[in-house]
Amino acid sequence: MDTKNTHEIDIVLATSSKINSVDFDNLSFGSTFTDHMLVCDFKEGKWGKPVIKPYEPFMIDPSAKVFHYGQAIFEGMKAYKDEQDQVWIFRPDQNLDRFNKSAVRMAMPEVPESIFIDGLKTILDIERAWVKKGLGNTLYIRPFMIAIGSGVIAQPSTQYRFMIILSPAKSYYSGDVKVIIAEHYSRAANGGIGAAKAAGNYSAQFYPQKLAQEKGFQQIIWTDDATHTKLEEAGTMNVFFKINDTLYTAPTSERILDGVTRKSLIDLAKREGIKVEERSVLVDEIVTAAKDGSLKEIFGAGTAAVVSPIVGFQYKEDYYELPKLQNSIAMDLKDKLTKIQYNLAEDTFGWTVKI
Amino acid sequence: MDTKNTHEIDIVLATSSKINSVDFDNLSFGSTFTDHMLVCDFKEGKWGKPVIKPYEPFMIDPSAKVFHYGQAIFEGMKAYKDEQDQVWIFRPDQNLDRFNKSAVRMAMPEVPESIFIDGLKTILDIERAWVKKGLGNTLYIRPFMIAIGSGVIAQPSTQYRFMIILSPAKSYYSGDVKVIIAEHYSRAANGGIGAAKAAGNYSAQFYPQKLAQEKGFQQIIWTDDATHTKLEEAGTMNVFFKINDTLYTAPTSERILDGVTRKSLIDLAKREGIKVEERSVLVDEIVTAAKDGSLKEIFGAGTAAVVSPIVGFQYKEDYYELPKLQNSIAMDLKDKLTKIQYNLAEDTFGWTVKI
Repeated sequence: MDTKNTHEIDIVLATSSKINSVDFDNLSFGSTFTDHMLVCDFKEGKWGKPVIKPYEPFMIDPSAKVFHYGQAIFEGMKAYKDEQDQVWIFRPDQNLDRFNKSAVRMAMPEVPESIFIDGLKTILDIERAWVKKGLGNTLYIRPFMIAIGSGVIAQPSTQYRFMIILSPAKSYYSGDVKVIIAEHYSRAANGGIGAAKAAGNYSAQFYPQKLAQEKGFQQIIWTDDATHTKLEEAGTMNVFFKINDTLYTAPTSERILDGVTRKSLIDLAKREGIKVEERSVLVDEIVTAAKDGSLKEIFGAGTAAVVSPIVGFQYKEDYYELPKLQNSIAMDLKDKLTKIQYNLAEDTFGWTVKI
Repeated sequence: MDTKNTHEIDIVLATSSKINSVDFDNLSFGSTFTDHMLVCDFKEGKWGKPVIKPYEPFMIDPSAKVFHYGQAIFEGMKAYKDEQDQVWIFRPDQNLDRFNKSAVRMAMPEVPESIFIDGLKTILDIERAWVKKGLGNTLYIRPFMIAIGSGVIAQPSTQYRFMIILSPAKSYYSGDVKVIIAEHYSRAANGGIGAAKAAGNYSAQFYPQKLAQEKGFQQIIWTDDATHTKLEEAGTMNVFFKINDTLYTAPTSERILDGVTRKSLIDLAKREGIKVEERSVLVDEIVTAAKDGSLKEIFGAGTAAVVSPIVGFQYKEDYYELPKLQNSIAMDLKDKLTKIQYNLAEDTFGWTVKI
């Protein structure tokens, strides 16, 4: 990691902290923010100086392109505190890399490492107290970029704002997760923006998600839009299937996000001697496997939830319940991954970065 | 049109107008705004009172859902001034209807006619002086709605802002428009949000559009994402093909916007005795028709440009030039449509609404 400070960062500290007013045992995901935010504007073809300042609303023109044409991308990351009060982040290079791939796809400027990574390290250093010890406690990190240039003409903006905001969190999901396999709605097109963490990919899911929830399902397993025969993602997560002793997950593509949790779980599983195949998984395969008992597990993988085990799936008229396991691969991999993230296990991969 | 004022509208007039500082002969599309804007907020399950007030930036939280999940929709409309200084709008009921369909698809609240239409009429009445006489002069109308609720969790917002902003305009496109037929990138998925005027649909086009422009093409003709064999839209417009004496355009679908200009041109063409077929048009068909000379015209149709004639198209390695016509259907239909819009011809369809 290059930590050279090519861009200086201006820092304006809050006069007082709101940390004592926060109930860390009862956090609603993504709704509480720390005292500071990082802001860096792009105009006239270049990035300005990043500023860390008190978290607050900002002024924006009603014609800002983000409102009309959706030029907006983000990342999701987490900071963890170990038993020695050291703060860690996980594979930030992967997030920066994906962020800049998203930027290219959305015709936005790439953000240099000196702003994204150095900015992140600097604000995390200021907000150390907001990262609480204990497995499950994290500081969720949301780097994002929006088009702030004005004008209601469908062309890329010339002005952008990159920001980092931070939100203390416990775990994302709770309770049993039942899913329904998409037969009509879709998440992404071939040649579309499914591989980008673009804002528009998420709101596009809200309506089908609402319909699924009304039927009693917490998530949708998305299928390819052309044939609805290939299993692609689960809600906003990548998805894994364990059939007999092998883990299967769809290969990343234009339609499927290159998840950091996904790729880390694959590496971890392989280290454990588990066979992993990255290939298209067909709906028919898992229906057959569910019927003959060879389908052992399905789980989502993403930064927010880490691993989200699925208890059963609906396809057309039938609901298929998965076996209740004492020792699931999902929970074992989650345990191994989170121990690395919290510096409770040796990081043989070189994934963690100390703040 | 129901003009009953079920919601009152608060009006705060600007202390002075900036209209005299605007050069109406040199307007850049969508970059100049009138003195006022309409704002109406939705929270706790209901719409508040609309306010018309001076056009100005507003405050928004960095975690607003529009920035992270792209819940944002819009419409494009125009106001026209006739020779008697009367101001007209065109088929506003169609825009309201489509806006609310977009709202449903994006899990946003529908906007009642009493806010959308009555609000629009009221602000247009205030901004009459910004609608200039003369064919080609319009006041472009941009109703839009954004999710202003805060929180970085991928769920629909509970708070929204509906706004109307107004921008004086001349014509949208100029010069010869050469297009390239999409072979890789796509605009919309089956079961996706292509039929909604959702912000994310537009930024998704910017990068492929940039690549096309680098090759010397002003627009892309989008094809279906699964096979790239069906012609769907041209840039942000619907697209028509004239082969021999028949006009063809793709039927509206989940992937194709139900354009107000599109449907009005179809009605006008039929009134003129022109044969119109709404059916999938294959890339192969127009390549064959271009080769044998039966392909006469291609044109885009949309509110901003009205009609945008295309002079030629690239498909794979070959460029196909269209015949230069003295009397094109495109320009004839544009002329007939704009005359209705400007109250220069009788509106036998009942499309126009006087402010």
